[in-house]
Amino acid sequence: MNDRFRDILQTFNNPRPQRDYTIEIVCPEFTSVCPKTGQPDFGTLRITYVPEAKCVELKSLKLYLQQYRNEGIFYEAVTNRILDDLTAVVSPRRMTLTASFTPRGGITTSVTATYQASTPSQ
Amino acid sequence: MNDRFRDILQTFNNPRPQRDYTIEIVCPEFTSVCPKTGQPDFGTLRITYVPEAKCVELKSLKLYLQQYRNEGIFYEAVTNRILDDLTAVVSPRRMTLTASFTPRGGITTSVTATYQASTPSQ
Amino acid sequence: MNDRFRDILQTFNNPRPQRDYTIEIVCPEFTSVCPKTGQPDFGTLRITYVPEAKCVELKSLKLYLQQYRNEGIFYEAVTNRILDDLTAVVSPRRMTLTASFTPRGGITTSVTATYQASTPSQ
Amino acid sequence: MNDRFRDILQTFNNPRPQRDYTIEIVCPEFTSVCPKTGQPDFGTLRITYVPEAKCVELKSLKLYLQQYRNEGIFYEAVTNRILDDLTAVVSPRRMTLTASFTPRGGITTSVTATYQASTPSQ
Amino acid sequence: MNDRFRDILQTFNNPRPQRDYTIEIVCPEFTSVCPKTGQPDFGTLRITYVPEAKCVELKSLKLYLQQYRNEGIFYEAVTNRILDDLTAVVSPRRMTLTASFTPRGGITTSVTATYQASTPSQ
Amino acid sequence: MNDRFRDILQTFNNPRPQRDYTIEIVCPEFTSVCPKTGQPDFGTLRITYVPEAKCVELKSLKLYLQQYRNEGIFYEAVTNRILDDLTAVVSPRRMTLTASFTPRGGITTSVTATYQASTPSQ
Amino acid sequence: MNDRFRDILQTFNNPRPQRDYTIEIVCPEFTSVCPKTGQPDFGTLRITYVPEAKCVELKSLKLYLQQYRNEGIFYEAVTNRILDDLTAVVSPRRMTLTASFTPRGGITTSVTATYQASTPSQ
Amino acid sequence: MNDRFRDILQTFNNPRPQRDYTIEIVCPEFTSVCPKTGQPDFGTLRITYVPEAKCVELKSLKLYLQQYRNEGIFYEAVTNRILDDLTAVVSPRRMTLTASFTPRGGITTSVTATYQASTPSQ
Amino acid sequence: MNDRFRDILQTFNNPRPQRDYTIEIVCPEFTSVCPKTGQPDFGTLRITYVPEAKCVELKSLKLYLQQYRNEGIFYEAVTNRILDDLTAVVSPRRMTLTASFTPRGGITTSVTATYQASTPSQ
Amino acid sequence: MNDRFRDILQTFNNPRPQRDYTIEIVCPEFTSVCPKTGQPDFGTLRITYVPEAKCVELKSLKLYLQQYRNEGIFYEAVTNRILDDLTAVVSPRRMTLTASFTPRGGITTSVTATYQASTPSQ
Repeated sequence: MNDRFRDILQTFNNPRPQRDYTIEIVCPEFTSVCPKTGQPDFGTLRITYVPEAKCVELKSLKLYLQQYRNEGIFYEAVTNRILDDLTAVVSPRRMTLTASFTPRGGITTSVTATYQASTPSQ
Repeated sequence: MNDRFRDILQTFNNPRPQRDYTIEIVCPEFTSVCPKTGQPDFGTLRITYVPEAKCVELKSLKLYLQQYRNEGIFYEAVTNRILDDLTAVVSPRRMTLTASFTPRGGITTSVTATYQASTPSQ
Repeated sequence: MNDRFRDILQTFNNPRPQRDYTIEIVCPEFTSVCPKTGQPDFGTLRITYVPEAKCVELKSLKLYLQQYRNEGIFYEAVTNRILDDLTAVVSPRRMTLTASFTPRGGITTSVTATYQASTPSQ
Repeated sequence: MNDRFRDILQTFNNPRPQRDYTIEIVCPEFTSVCPKTGQPDFGTLRITYVPEAKCVELKSLKLYLQQYRNEGIFYEAVTNRILDDLTAVVSPRRMTLTASFTPRGGITTSVTATYQASTPSQ
Repeated sequence: MNDRFRDILQTFNNPRPQRDYTIEIVCPEFTSVCPKTGQPDFGTLRITYVPEAKCVELKSLKLYLQQYRNEGIFYEAVTNRILDDLTAVVSPRRMTLTASFTPRGGITTSVTATYQASTPSQ
Repeated sequence: MNDRFRDILQTFNNPRPQRDYTIEIVCPEFTSVCPKTGQPDFGTLRITYVPEAKCVELKSLKLYLQQYRNEGIFYEAVTNRILDDLTAVVSPRRMTLTASFTPRGGITTSVTATYQASTPSQ
Repeated sequence: MNDRFRDILQTFNNPRPQRDYTIEIVCPEFTSVCPKTGQPDFGTLRITYVPEAKCVELKSLKLYLQQYRNEGIFYEAVTNRILDDLTAVVSPRRMTLTASFTPRGGITTSVTATYQASTPSQ
Repeated sequence: MNDRFRDILQTFNNPRPQRDYTIEIVCPEFTSVCPKTGQPDFGTLRITYVPEAKCVELKSLKLYLQQYRNEGIFYEAVTNRILDDLTAVVSPRRMTLTASFTPRGGITTSVTATYQASTPSQ
Repeated sequence: MNDRFRDILQTFNNPRPQRDYTIEIVCPEFTSVCPKTGQPDFGTLRITYVPEAKCVELKSLKLYLQQYRNEGIFYEAVTNRILDDLTAVVSPRRMTLTASFTPRGGITTSVTATYQASTPSQ
Repeated sequence: MNDRFRDILQTFNNPRPQRDYTIEIVCPEFTSVCPKTGQPDFGTLRITYVPEAKCVELKSLKLYLQQYRNEGIFYEAVTNRILDDLTAVVSPRRMTLTASFTPRGGITTSVTATYQASTPSQ
């Protein structure tokens, strides 16, 4: 099932692969569903990455994130899954994803995960 | 008595145990009772941890924290006890808990404690 | 049951009944229980009143409000009930109570009610 | 189709129908779908009303609003439809609904509508 | 006992009695003692007045307010008593006193009282 | 003595006497001497006026205010005296002067006085 | 005389002496008397410490600090004396005290002192 | 096509080539066109560089940036292309360009790239 | 002439000479006279020091600083002279003085100087 | 032509040449003329320096900076020229000049340059 979402992500060629530069993307309209209660969750995703050969295409990223709209998934799982999907498709030099969710039951949660290519280019 | 509360805490499998990532949980609605005066105390708990094999389930965390609603306990004891319960159940790589209480008698108190797994994974 | 709480409220003689003056009391540590879910609710009460013959004694007000700690009651009911209790015991010239509760399920609620003595002194 | 959503709304008896008081409810997690593009919309609803015989139950309100999650509907239509549903079920003395949506194409929109009972009680 | 404090207040002649002008005095270092618990209270006094024939001398006001340092007195009584003393000694055209006290038992209180000369000069 | 200071003030012709317009002048470096203690006082003067035939020349205003540097005078007197001097020399349609002094003995004072020409031009 | 105050301070057993953790206490309602002028001083104390075998009990700390209410003592002396009393009674691993006083004669002062146990436990 | 834009950039001689100093240029009015949707994009460019023999002339920079008004180009490509054009024409010792774009489809993006001369002068 | 001012400074014995602790004093009401134009200057002095055997007495410091009220002296000279006087009288372990003056002719100046005892005690 | 401006700068003897201390001067009213368009430029100069034998006299600095009022000169040139003039006349131990100009054609520029005496005194 994971791959069904991942296939939506599209890339384009990094216009300057020879240069180490940083792209930051903020998505304040993320929503998914709590797998225990069936209630919707809302959060902001912040993606920062240094591209290698490919960049993520933003419209496909938006459509990819919309797939979670009716998906039941924990905060920790969705954060790691999105990082896995993005790094699998984009193969960046490094990438960090922070997901900050709105309060539930008086409790606020955020999750931060980082990917580092095993053979860094610099 | 400690274990009676601790048994409420539930966990689920860390979806990416191979990755060192951070979860931050803020609980601004914590309340307990002063063991000397019997008056209610109010505070905000901030939990930050890197999971090993397990993550704390948030609804069970909410219910666990609600057990203190009518429990007489000092600031220093409750901060350490919650850190002990969480680290006993979750066995994280590391965890920090800061408890900030509202003023009493014109005096404001906060307590910060940290746990570090004895054989860190990184 | 209503009267059981009300009996806790104490008053003292208004030191200047001949003067129309205003007392504002803010209680940010109010907590009760949702009658549907059994979960605790948290809110801030703001009481503004012009006393007639009596003023509410603050320590008794604190103890009175603490009675709701384990009481299952809706936002609308608790706001009106506290206003009724206070006006029954204090008989002010006028009083307004605003109760602002913390978010539940992503929804924030506040309730405002006002009492006006039927034969105003001015 | 309209009634299918409306049936979710539940009420409870106004605990003080003899008093004119105000309830304000803020819902920052509203989301629906644009009927032209199929893209999700996000907004904040602010409901202010004076109840007559009934109050809206908050959990049912949350579930009612979640029905719009996959519903294609314009900003203006959804604002009026929610006001219609709420006033039909709650029959308040008066009610105002303001819906503020996040930017789309660099444009931010909000819609405000008001209902006034034809025979006001005061 | 009231007069013993009042006698400390000194005045000087209003340098422009023919003009209606406003003097605002803020005293953030007021402290007295709670008559029930014997604990110290702390507050900020804000005095605004239009003088008639006399102005209050500030050093005597400071000494006057220091008399309350070890005096057991309720918020409502001290606010009205200070207003009475000041208006008795200064005979202003009008005067407003707001006393805002720091939180006690999680409850914050302020008291506002106003004096208006019975035969206003304007 | 008053006139000795006043003579320093110079004016120039209002370039548009037919128009009712406003001039605001802020002087944060005012200093005089307390007539009781001999200690220096510091304050900020804010002058707002609508000119009639004349405007105050700013360099002369600066020199005029510097005359108070070693002058023993109460807050209320200096505020009214400066307003008197300015209105005597400039004859404005109306003028307001607010003098805000720095804290002394934990007490902060400001004085506000207003002049209105007896036969207003509008 | 020093010991008379110190005897008021009470402690309780550190609930986790095996853990190095931090307690921060803020007291914005400290007041003493200037030994030269007899005028009251006001300040905020910020105490940060890592406990060894004992923690300071907060109600006794409040009563201890209230002893200074009518005590004539310089800023520098009171800061060091409170640090000495607290470290003598609590024997912490380390402790820092910052006392920030309100302006006097246009001058604002703060004093910061630190204690470090001679044989640190870590 | 790239060179057609680049030819617009003009330079003037660095007035102090012997000194290592920094020039920062902020352009908040950049606009280009999304190559996928044909919609306009808006962003702020921040250029920081240490000049070698030449400085970029600002009016030519403004005209150069205006060429992108109707150019369909991705964020990542335009950021790198502008950095390439500027470094080709100016040959600075080092230069950093950050492009921050306004939200599109609820997603905000910024791109940062840096150039370092291969034989730094210091 | 320098010594005439310096003689005003008084000290008292450092209550804890065996402890290295910090005293910070802020004086926002400093005023002197420009030696070229005869115009008054205004500034804020910030003094930070670690005492050795003596502390500066604050009332004498206030009187010492008031001596500059009618003294013609440059910013750079007054800053260094006050540091010299204070270190000569107090003999601290170390002291820093920052003098920040208000704008003159549209130009704002601040001067910072530091003293370090030649044989530091720690 | 450069020297014509430079000759306006005056100095006075550093009152404490034996001490390494810092002088910061901020000039928010700098204006010159763009050499290409003839339009006025506006900016803020921030000068920070450690004097050796001489300090810059502020009134002469003001007059010196006013010479640029009708001078056509690029941002980069004027920043370096002022730094050159000041270091030639003052011979400081070190000096930094930052010139921040207001937007032109939607573009904001600032230039920062630093001078270090070749044989530093410390």
